[in-house]
Amino acid sequence: MVKNIPLILPPFPRGFHLITALITNKIGILPENGLLQLFLQHTSAGITINENADPTVRYDLEMYFNRLVLERDSLFTHIYEGDDDMPSHIKTALTGNCLSIPIMNRKLSLGTWQGIYLCEFRNHGGERRIIATIIS
Amino acid sequence: MVKNIPLILPPFPRGFHLITALITNKIGILPENGLLQLFLQHTSAGITINENADPTVRYDLEMYFNRLVLERDSLFTHIYEGDDDMPSHIKTALTGNCLSIPIMNRKLSLGTWQGIYLCEFRNHGGERRIIATIIS
Amino acid sequence: MVKNIPLILPPFPRGFHLITALITNKIGILPENGLLQLFLQHTSAGITINENADPTVRYDLEMYFNRLVLERDSLFTHIYEGDDDMPSHIKTALTGNCLSIPIMNRKLSLGTWQGIYLCEFRNHGGERRIIATIIS
Repeated sequence: MVKNIPLILPPFPRGFHLITALITNKIGILPENGLLQLFLQHTSAGITINENADPTVRYDLEMYFNRLVLERDSLFTHIYEGDDDMPSHIKTALTGNCLSIPIMNRKLSLGTWQGIYLCEFRNHGGERRIIATIIS
Repeated sequence: MVKNIPLILPPFPRGFHLITALITNKIGILPENGLLQLFLQHTSAGITINENADPTVRYDLEMYFNRLVLERDSLFTHIYEGDDDMPSHIKTALTGNCLSIPIMNRKLSLGTWQGIYLCEFRNHGGERRIIATIIS
Repeated sequence: MVKNIPLILPPFPRGFHLITALITNKIGILPENGLLQLFLQHTSAGITINENADPTVRYDLEMYFNRLVLERDSLFTHIYEGDDDMPSHIKTALTGNCLSIPIMNRKLSLGTWQGIYLCEFRNHGGERRIIATIIS
């Protein structure tokens, strides 16, 4: 059985954000076992899995990605949608915008230290749409 | 139900290429709802999702990745398959070579600005094989 | 049908390691066709697919990632879990920690040159847990 659940995330500031609780609250009761796939319908934000505990991990990721992909790089020709636009497309290519998590005993089988991150690469990304697909 | 559909892509020049129409034409009629998984059977090319509109995004991605992973880097020991070979393996590790897209109302649930990209990292990559798996 | 199989990988030294045989031995007989999803339950190691033949590819990947994400970077604020910790989180964000492989004719449909890699980013990562999910 496959069930698609469209979700809307509220606007987040630029940066890496823990959205595990937000996702699990929205998708409701999970099947006994299965797979959850998350698909972010955007090209200037990513989703990934990383540490759920210390917020400095999220801060350092944001700082690192900002230095790895500089704004106003003289290389860029796609420049008319803002300084944060082309870097956002590149960062999205690096982090990806879909992932899958196993479901066991009606729960997401995340590791002890794992959380789901929204990587908001735009300064004002606004609401973001994710489609959650549950396979059971 | 799971259905695997092997596809062959024609040779593309080195660079990032929009292949959404090519994929959707080849996989045929989609189920009412489900999940499409795409798996590229190569280690020197990637698949990812990014902007489907302005071709300068694809151009800038190619330029950025070329600078991030330089050819003839003195670090490399895997050098006998051409200058573009080891950089291609690294770029593949960065972009990935599989992704999944939800299916709703018999269509891929791509966001408005999303398209499927083939990232051809070799100078002469030739035909590329993708297996499309439809879960419904 | 969805089946989740928790696996434990033995400790690997820091570096990129080919684990295809280890995975296929542990998951047992595969269905006629379907999809295998692998999910690594950690935030300082990754899984990816790359060349299965020449070990210098794995060596060069390790060297490249070490230079791309330097230890003791003055940028980092998350520094109290060791010099290899924050770099490991960043490398995990770059490689990812989940992937899916089609199953056809009771075998993983890997390309001729493809193998499954464990990317061990910590100096002493210890055992690593992967959940294999088979959809058929």
